Formats: sequence, structure tokens, C-alpha cells
Amino acid sequence: MSVNTIGRLYRLTTFGESHGKAIGGVIDGCPSGILIDYGLVRRELQRRRPGQSAITTQRQERDNVEFLSGIFEDKTTGTPIGFIIRNDDQRSDDYDHLKNVYRPSHADFTYFQKYGIRDHRGGGRSSARVTSARVVAGAIAKMALQSLGIEINAYTMQVGHIKLDQPYDQYDFSTIENNIVRCPDPDKAMEMIKLIEQVRDDGDTIGGIIACVAKNVPVGLGAPEFGKLHAELGAAMLSINAVRGFEIGEGFNAVTMRGSQHNDPFWYDALAQRVRTSTNHAGGIQGGISNGEDIYFKVVFKPVATIMSEQQSVDIENNEVTIQPKGRHDPCVLPRAVPIVEAMTAITILDHFLLNKAYQI
Amino acid sequence: MSVNTIGRLYRLTTFGESHGKAIGGVIDGCPSGILIDYGLVRRELQRRRPGQSAITTQRQERDNVEFLSGIFEDKTTGTPIGFIIRNDDQRSDDYDHLKNVYRPSHADFTYFQKYGIRDHRGGGRSSARVTSARVVAGAIAKMALQSLGIEINAYTMQVGHIKLDQPYDQYDFSTIENNIVRCPDPDKAMEMIKLIEQVRDDGDTIGGIIACVAKNVPVGLGAPEFGKLHAELGAAMLSINAVRGFEIGEGFNAVTMRGSQHNDPFWYDALAQRVRTSTNHAGGIQGGISNGEDIYFKVVFKPVATIMSEQQSVDIENNEVTIQPKGRHDPCVLPRAVPIVEAMTAITILDHFLLNKAYQI
Amino acid sequence: MSVNTIGRLYRLTTFGESHGKAIGGVIDGCPSGILIDYGLVRRELQRRRPGQSAITTQRQERDNVEFLSGIFEDKTTGTPIGFIIRNDDQRSDDYDHLKNVYRPSHADFTYFQKYGIRDHRGGGRSSARVTSARVVAGAIAKMALQSLGIEINAYTMQVGHIKLDQPYDQYDFSTIENNIVRCPDPDKAMEMIKLIEQVRDDGDTIGGIIACVAKNVPVGLGAPEFGKLHAELGAAMLSINAVRGFEIGEGFNAVTMRGSQHNDPFWYDALAQRVRTSTNHAGGIQGGISNGEDIYFKVVFKPVATIMSEQQSVDIENNEVTIQPKGRHDPCVLPRAVPIVEAMTAITILDHFLLNKAYQI
Amino acid sequence: MSVNTIGRLYRLTTFGESHGKAIGGVIDGCPSGILIDYGLVRRELQRRRPGQSAITTQRQERDNVEFLSGIFEDKTTGTPIGFIIRNDDQRSDDYDHLKNVYRPSHADFTYFQKYGIRDHRGGGRSSARVTSARVVAGAIAKMALQSLGIEINAYTMQVGHIKLDQPYDQYDFSTIENNIVRCPDPDKAMEMIKLIEQVRDDGDTIGGIIACVAKNVPVGLGAPEFGKLHAELGAAMLSINAVRGFEIGEGFNAVTMRGSQHNDPFWYDALAQRVRTSTNHAGGIQGGISNGEDIYFKVVFKPVATIMSEQQSVDIENNEVTIQPKGRHDPCVLPRAVPIVEAMTAITILDHFLLNKAYQI
Repeated sequence: MSVNTIGRLYRLTTFGESHGKAIGGVIDGCPSGILIDYGLVRRELQRRRPGQSAITTQRQERDNVEFLSGIFEDKTTGTPIGFIIRNDDQRSDDYDHLKNVYRPSHADFTYFQKYGIRDHRGGGRSSARVTSARVVAGAIAKMALQSLGIEINAYTMQVGHIKLDQPYDQYDFSTIENNIVRCPDPDKAMEMIKLIEQVRDDGDTIGGIIACVAKNVPVGLGAPEFGKLHAELGAAMLSINAVRGFEIGEGFNAVTMRGSQHNDPFWYDALAQRVRTSTNHAGGIQGGISNGEDIYFKVVFKPVATIMSEQQSVDIENNEVTIQPKGRHDPCVLPRAVPIVEAMTAITILDHFLLNKAYQI
Repeated sequence: MSVNTIGRLYRLTTFGESHGKAIGGVIDGCPSGILIDYGLVRRELQRRRPGQSAITTQRQERDNVEFLSGIFEDKTTGTPIGFIIRNDDQRSDDYDHLKNVYRPSHADFTYFQKYGIRDHRGGGRSSARVTSARVVAGAIAKMALQSLGIEINAYTMQVGHIKLDQPYDQYDFSTIENNIVRCPDPDKAMEMIKLIEQVRDDGDTIGGIIACVAKNVPVGLGAPEFGKLHAELGAAMLSINAVRGFEIGEGFNAVTMRGSQHNDPFWYDALAQRVRTSTNHAGGIQGGISNGEDIYFKVVFKPVATIMSEQQSVDIENNEVTIQPKGRHDPCVLPRAVPIVEAMTAITILDHFLLNKAYQI
Repeated sequence: MSVNTIGRLYRLTTFGESHGKAIGGVIDGCPSGILIDYGLVRRELQRRRPGQSAITTQRQERDNVEFLSGIFEDKTTGTPIGFIIRNDDQRSDDYDHLKNVYRPSHADFTYFQKYGIRDHRGGGRSSARVTSARVVAGAIAKMALQSLGIEINAYTMQVGHIKLDQPYDQYDFSTIENNIVRCPDPDKAMEMIKLIEQVRDDGDTIGGIIACVAKNVPVGLGAPEFGKLHAELGAAMLSINAVRGFEIGEGFNAVTMRGSQHNDPFWYDALAQRVRTSTNHAGGIQGGISNGEDIYFKVVFKPVATIMSEQQSVDIENNEVTIQPKGRHDPCVLPRAVPIVEAMTAITILDHFLLNKAYQI
Repeated sequence: MSVNTIGRLYRLTTFGESHGKAIGGVIDGCPSGILIDYGLVRRELQRRRPGQSAITTQRQERDNVEFLSGIFEDKTTGTPIGFIIRNDDQRSDDYDHLKNVYRPSHADFTYFQKYGIRDHRGGGRSSARVTSARVVAGAIAKMALQSLGIEINAYTMQVGHIKLDQPYDQYDFSTIENNIVRCPDPDKAMEMIKLIEQVRDDGDTIGGIIACVAKNVPVGLGAPEFGKLHAELGAAMLSINAVRGFEIGEGFNAVTMRGSQHNDPFWYDALAQRVRTSTNHAGGIQGGISNGEDIYFKVVFKPVATIMSEQQSVDIENNEVTIQPKGRHDPCVLPRAVPIVEAMTAITILDHFLLNKAYQI
């Protein structure tokens, strides 16, 4: 029900604004007995952190997470895991000139109209800052999934017009972290980085596509009708800041395919002793339920709304204003969004794993 | 929580299989006092109905809805509206040869693995037949939205490689129903119909894209974080059978745009006395909340899985089998999916309208 | 979220009014593979049915349930079980004189104020008629619980001042159905029946208490904080028409007990190889979670609001009116409420069984 | 869905254990624009605080709440209000001897069985400590309700055998805080205090009853079927630690009343221009919906499980053990539970106020 909660059985509720005291969350429904790998939590937050490389915003946030409950002697207890991340390096003054102004393509206008009040400092609740809480919950979900053998990898597959041209299984995911744009093709990565730098130097921003692959997901996750696994993955992805589209498997490519091309024939893999499909146009989900093949989908991110050029807009008294850019911003969100895509995937898959488990009586 | 329910305050729970006694639903949370336009319900069902034209399946279903509760003297009472649609023209025998076989790219395999049992007749719960219940709930949502001035129109914008080349505001939506493919461009419609007929004659199937536009949606619907309006629209669309992708506004086009191109500048419309944007790349939603501009999104449908050619597969005992096509099927789901897209849009928008209303104390 | 739905994983949504076309429900989240015992469904409905004995209303309802989905070859498929019960013996005319009148202690006034419209025929949505849907869902829950060895028995323990004076374990539950008041003490049963007959002959009504015992509930059902098992049982019971109170274990008796008397000491039962308590003042639930002892609680029912004597009230135009009784009504709801209490208990326990199962990874 | 969340539109999710770093909560769905009265929050926490008087535990907790989000310039913004209360005066050593022991009538056994792990220090998640979060959310709900004219008062009406003998409307609620037991009858209060002191000196504990009255609740809150207002109030109360029963209006008294006595006749109050009932046996709720009269209910608390005498139990290896009492505990929870009852009432009523508002289109 809640608009600030995701999940049915593994649930994350987040709170916090970019320039408030802290952001944080409550993970409710984490199975007990999971050993917390604090290093993994830190690494995931580090991947999302601003200031991590030359192509991200130079804003610094330490992103130290403090766990407040639900963990005892480094193991989850089955009770809610409350956690907070203090906001520190806050240059709220950077936003004073925007106090009464609606920045184009930000949430300033819609929030103010909806709530009649807004925390104008840095986007408030709509800031990507709050995705840190998702990364924490995703890291813990990953710990649970790892024990089940499930692996999740996301990577940047397109920035502007620079795109990967091979199917995902042609790339070595262990190389994703080898470059600052998080792309498993080193040459393309170099081109993407150059493009981002050029766009940044133009005072502009650029979007792109992140692909995500979940391996070893068991058959049977998801449900018919409204609980289709790809619908829930889609909702999770579309809830990430700046996301504008989602496609599973062939996605928009399917439009120009015939049924005879798009269908995935079944065959029996005697070695693995399980039914498989010889192609995977479906992206691992059929009838809304995982079929045991790789789950594969793409998420499109728009160019960041904050640009380093003058823009026309209006203020809260409906006067025309010119906005002068200020502050430290990302020319392209993709490098930092990769861990968020993984986190949301982990949360969604663990949630459906638990949901499926409930009914195996 | 439920995987068979959608909505928070205007909620639809569906039930039923294609070859059971009936399909149906419960609409819970319909405001009281809405005058039921039975003609509208019938027309919407008629648009979704099989056998409606030469390019849809020739299977006949009468789709007579029987309302069982929640309506008194033709007005909604605020209590749950239960309704059923009996299944009649059931040629279950058509499916006998598929009893123990997994049809490629259908839900046969995943359902059987998940539940250990399946109703093999015509797809059972995964059949598009059950979308009738969505159309009924959508029709009633439309009645409520009409009184608020909100209009929703979907149309076929692409079938295979045939696509509309103008922005949506160049088309006259009142012409959508003038052709059997539900496309507002009569020439393109003709081409699409020809393509579908040719594909059908090849024993094959084809996919496409449906666009949807919601006009006069008030500012303020949707919510930050997980309740973003486009995330919920996306989930609603991705829950429709055969949908493989969703994009809001520019969607995947945004990838190659710069921020300076993609941003929508605000201006004050003195005549209308409201703030507007001069472009609408965002598709009417900013920060997850409607901004008063047209809400505009696209939904991609894969080619129908049931083709009229032989296919290789396996049976439930893991033997290789050859599937011989039989029965009456759609070569392209788009014409019949248009009203379903509208229905899911109406349900989602009414739901968020009510949710927004709750907090205006 | 929905006010017409109960349960998290085993969920019942009901619909229908007493004098509409049908009442019914959707059971969503029933595990697959459960063999449906149609006889049990009928027997449970028969126990709730009006006209079953001399001390219930003489109104006749056939209560034939029609299952529409979710069952294939007599087994549940894991998809929603939709079902309806047609309303037949409807003497709506009996209610014409009440069309514009608020019957005292009925829902007429509050419904009309809330919704601005009401179906005045026989209570509409607030009629006990709609509890039939609960009984159906309860019967199916019982089938699932039986396979787990869990048994649920409710019985009438007090009517007016006539009450059982022994602890529940002194009674033989197999005798509950031996008398029309559903009381395991035959002498008290006789007294209760006489009292009900006398009250009925006075044109009046009377309330009472139903006790319920669930045996063999495994340790671990329920949850801390808001999901305490007794809180959810309490909510389920308080949602039954005419219920005014709920107590678990010693309940209100606990007020005059000291901690040293009320505490249940633990001991180890070497034979059964499990920890038990030597007393069970807690009623089988500690810290909101079942401890393996019998779950024991009581539910109080007020006297039926419809009495066969003149009453003063007002009409919808605020005029004073005198209400003349008419129709066929129960002098005491308890005999017919026993199966409803059992049904709600079964639904709640199965729901928590599934919820607990989800987390055993 | 979540077992750690209460509410549909005004939602509280809590987290934390008695001896962890902090307890806290997230209030999700608070309307925007509410001026926060920090003094009220502090006063309410002070009323719940241990160490506040001679008859409560002498444990000291400062209960300083830190708001982390959702408030900007002292007003609610409509986004989630995250807050924490650090645990300080933690004498965890007091619990070392209980590490492997199940304390009778505590949650030690059931938690350990359910989760396979438990934080043994002071009850962990099952500690009354975590009710502080409820009090914070209740205080903010009260601020919203005050602006609507709704007032909520709870008081101790019985401790052991000492009970108030007048109807609630004979007492002056402004005197409730005049004594440490929170009873509006000063003489009875004195007797209650003496009894609690005597029980404490005996090393024992005692229970009692808290009554609660909500005035000026508008007509129309609550819903038919499972969302009955008294069912939700009951669930909220039964979720409070040590609560064993709940009754609305006449409650268990109704058993020996006839319908002709229990019914509440309607009359038209021309002065107030509204329909009222001349009696209020129903406790302000009819058919599950508020009728505008005072909402009145009672909550029974068992004697505290921790007593200052030796008790027999078993340890986690099933050995018999003798428990020696230690630590600082309440001989009677009622004085400190009064603000918790009020908080849960405020949360529930505000939630239904918003829910009712949603549908007034």
C-alpha cells in the first residue's frame, strides 16, 4: 500500500531527504540467521557514492551506514533492520537561489503543487541521495540470494549513441568494475567516458541504458496476473530516479519479430536434468514466472535534469526567471545507477523467492 | 500484497481461467454514487472481444457481464462490485492434444513447475481471456474519471515495421475506432491490416506498439519513491499478457538526447492561469507526480506465441514432441489490446486520484 | 489494505449484499494441490444457514455455493478461487416499510451518512448473510489445516446468564453438534435453548459468548509488534457481525490475578520431546507467537438488533418514527455464529502458517 | 501486509530492540502542513517513560526522539517522517544470567523457536521499550486530529479488584494526570496506588483495565466487512504488549442484556442539527462505522510477566532451571500504558479519517 515501501515479504521502507539530518530505511521481513557482510554493504554504497570518479559529481558523501536494529552478533534476527545514513557534506547554500524557483524537469513544481510545501535544498525527497537506502537493502538481499546461488550483474550498455553490440553472454561480468563507467567492453567504456567528459565540458548531460542479468534464479518465481515477475521488476526499475523505460528480454525488438522467431523452443537438458529453452528471447520469464533461464532486462535513463547552462523557468509566484546553474552534479547517472539497478533486482527477486516459498506446503 | 489484485484504493481482484465456468472480478473501493453506464461496459468489452473482425481470432465469446453486487438502482453503493462473465464457446477439445505438452513461449511450463498442476485448456489462468475483468473495472473507472474531465485514449502506433511517424498530437483520436486495427492514421491502418493478414496467412504472428494518452489529469497524482505514477503505470502495463516493455514520454529516445534538449522549460499560461511546460518530453510526469500535461507512454507487445506452424518442444515427461497447431488464435493482439491498455490506465489514474484526495485535509 | 479483504497470504475478498443477486468471494493464495471436500463446504454452510432449527430465523436460504475458478479436477490449482452463492428466498417487500428509516443499532444510519446511498433491503452489505463467503473460505482453510494436523472447534459457552462452568478441556468437542445451540454440555444446552425460546416469545433477543480452541498449532505462528497472532485473531473475530469483544486465554480474568498466578511455567516434556507450559493462562500465544499449546479465546456477541417490538427512531428526513417489526429474524445469533468463528480462525491460522513458512529458507 | 506496520494511509513502521542501538519508526502518509508541537511529543513520551513515579520501574530512559526527515521548518512535508530514540541506560548485564533461559510468559521461547536466534537482552523486540515509537506516531496523529476537533482520552479504570463504578461521562478527564496511576477518581486512584505498592513489595505484579474515549469523531469512519472501525481499534489495542482483551461499548456486559435494552434509539437533535442516539451501548460504532457518538472501549492488561520471585523454567537445552529475578521492572503496566492506548487510538482514527476522505469525490 505504502508509496514509500516496496516488496511483499522482503520489504523496504525508506525515508529521508537530501539535505535533512539523515536518510535511512527499514528492512522488514529479512529472514533470520543471515550473516551480515559489512564489507559488501560498504562496497555497494561505494559504487553508488558521488565523487567516486572523474565522471561523477564531485560532491562528497561519506555514506556511512549505521545499523540500529535487527542484527545481533552480526546475524539477522528476523526483526526489522532499521538503518540510517547521516547527511554531511551539505552545501545547502548552493540551493538558496533556487528556493522559490521550479527547476525544469525536476520535481520542484509537482511536489510544491501536491504538498504545498517543499524542502528546496537539493531536491529533498526526490534526490538520488535517497537511493542509498535501496543499496543497503539490496546488499542484504544479495547476501540471502548468494546462499541460494543467485547472482545479479548490471552494467552500462549504452551512453548516448555509444552502445555495446554483442549479446550479454559475450561479456565477462567480472570486468564490469574495471572502468569507471561500469561497462564490460573496455573499448566501448573508453568511448563512453570520453563522451561523458565532452558532454560535461559542454555544460550538458547525457542518458543511457543499463542492462541487468540475474543468473540461477529458480523456476517458479513470480505469479500470474498482476504479480508477474517482469511487471514487478519493471515497477522497481521505473521507481529509480531518471528511469524512463524498461524492457524484458527482446523488449522493443520484439515488435519486428515474427512469433516463429520470437518463440523459445523447449528442450530437455539430460545433463542438467531440467527442461530448458534453446533461445531466451523471453528474458527468463514466461507467463510472469521465471523459467530457470537467465533473467535479462534493460533500463533506460534520461539525461540528468540539472545542466550547467542557463535555463528559462518560472518561480512560485508565476514570474519568469532565468536559472543560473550552480552546485556539483553528474553529467551522466549511469555509472552510479548500476548498483541501484542491481539492488532493486535483488530486492524483487528475494521477495518473490519468499513468496513462492510460502506456498510450498 | 495480493498478486491477483491491483490498486491501493480503487482495487481490482480478478479470478478465472479461460475454460473454467466463469471469469470475473471484485472492484473494491469504487466511490459511491457513480451512475453505471452499462452501454459503455458493453462497448469496451466489445472492443476486447475475439471474433470482432477479420484480423482477430474467430473464436466467439459473448462476454456478457453480470454484476452481482455493489450497484443499487444503477448507482454504485460504495461496497464491492462483484461481477462474472460466463465462459461459453469453449472448445476445450482443441486443447486435448496439448494436455501434457509445454507450448513454447506460453506459461505451460512455468505454471506446471510452480503449482504442480495446471488447467491445460487454453492457457488457463494465463489466457488473455481473463483480461475481460480488467476491461470491466476499467470501464467503471472511466465513468468516475469522466466526471473529473479526464480522458484516456490508446491506439495502435506500430505493427511490425509499419509505424506512425507523427507525434501523438497530430492525430484525431476520434478516428481510432474507424478501422479494425485501431490506428488514427487511415493509410497506416490499411498497411497494418495488410501486414497482419499476410502474417496470418503465413501461419505466423506479429507484435507491435500501443501508445496511450491521458488528458486533463490534474497536477499532483503519484508519489515520490516507490509510488511514482509512471512506475505504477508501467507495472499495470507490464502485467498485460504479451507486454514486453514500457516507456514514458521520450522513453528510449531519451538515450541519445542531451539534458538541454530533454528538459521541459516551465512557463506561465496566463490564460489558463497555470504553470505549464513548453515541451513534454517527460510525458506528463515529473518526480513521479503528474504535472498537468498530457500523460503519454508506449507499450510493446510481442508476437503471439501460438503460431500455426509445427514447433518442437517437450512434454511433462521430458520427451521431445512436435506440436501441431490447432484452434483459433490471433495473428496480432494489438487491436484487441487497445481497450485493455486504456482500462489499466483508467484504473491506475483513478487509484492515484483517490490516494491524492485522501491527504487533502 | 482493502477493507473487504482479510489475510496476507491466504486472502479472502468478499462481495455482496443480502438482497442483491448473489454474495460471493475470491480466495487468493490458496496453496495448490488441495483436494476439495465439497461435503465439508456444504456441512459448514449448513451450520451457518438460517432456518436450520427452531431457535434460528425461519428464513430459508439454500446457500448453494458455485465455484467458478481455481479448482481443476477437484484440486486447487494455486490460482484464485472465485465463488458465488445466489440469493433466492428474498422477501424484499418485508423491508419496504424500512426504506427511509434508520433501524436502531443497525448500520442503516452510518451507511447512509457515509455513502449517501444504501440498499435498504435487509441490511445490504451489513447483513450476516455475507458471512457465508467467510464460511466457504474457512472450509477450504480447514482442508489445508487438516493435512497439517490442526483442529479448530468453537462452541457456545454462554447465552444470557446461562454459562458453562468448566474449563474447555473438560468438554468433549465431538458432542457440540448434538444440540441446536452448539454447546458441549447437554444440560446447559437445554437451558440455553429454553432461554432463547423464551426471549423469542417475548419478541426480544439475547447475546452470548462463543469459545474457540485450536489444537496442534505449531510453535512459531504470529509475529512481534503489529502482527501478533492474537491481535489478528481478535481483528478477525471483531469483524464478525454483532461481535463486541474478544479475549485470549484468561482475558478479562487476568485483571484480578497476580503475575505469579498468571505466568505459565515451562517444562520439558521428554515424551513429546518438546518444551511445554504446565498451565495455559496465555491461551497458547506468547509475545504474539504461538507456543504450541492450545490456542484458546472467547468472543462476545451482543443481542440481535432486530427485535419484535415497537421501537422509536427517525427517518432520513429526521422525522420521528415508530418502527413496527416485520420479517424473520434470529432471537440469538450464537448457534449460527459458531461456524463463522471457526472459519475466521481457520483463515487466520492458515494465513500465519504460510507467512511463517515463507521465511524458513 | 507487514507485521511491523500498522495503518493503511497513516502508517507506522517500527523497528528496534530494547538493548540495541536505538528504536525508531517511520511515519508514512502524514498529511503535509501539520505544525509539529515538539512539546506534545515530549509530554507523551514522558507519560510512557519508565522511572516517572514510585510505582513504575526505576529504570531510566531519556527517550529523546530525533526526527530525521519529513519535517521542514517545523511543518510536515508529506514525505516519510523517520525518527529514532537512542537506547542509553542499558544494563545489559542484568540479562546475562537469562541468556539461555526461557522466562515464563515472556516471548523468549516463541522467538527462539521461530527465528532460531534471539537478542536475550531485556526482551529484545518484544520489550515494551519499542512502544515509544508508537507514542511518537500517536502524538503526531493527535496534532492532526486536534485540528479536526477530535479528542482522545484514556485512563486506568481498574487495577486488580479496585475499579471505577461510574460511567465514563461522570469523570473529569482533565484530572487524569493528577495522580501517578492516571485515574480520574482520586480516591480510587489512591487505592490503586496502594495496591500496586503492596503487590510490588510482595515481589509480584498485577493487571488491570484501561478505558478510552474518543470524542467528536465524525460520522462515517470505518467500513463494512473486515475494515470495521472497532475491529481495527481492537487489533491496534491487542498489539500492545500485555493486552489480553478488548471490548467496545457494553462489550462483555452485552451478554446478559436483551436487545430491547441494548439497542440505542435514534432521535433528532434539532439544536445540533444531527441525528443522535439516546443511549450509547454501541460505543459510538454501528455496522463498523462511527455514528458520531463517543467511541468508548476497554482494554485489559495482564499482570507483568517479570516477577521478583523465583520461578521454574527450562533453558535452551531443555534443562530445568530456577530463575532468580534481577533488574528493574514495573509491578503494573497500566500507568505507563495509558498514553500507548491513546496513541494507538489516534493512529487508527486518523487512518480511517484519511481513508474516508479519499472517497468523497
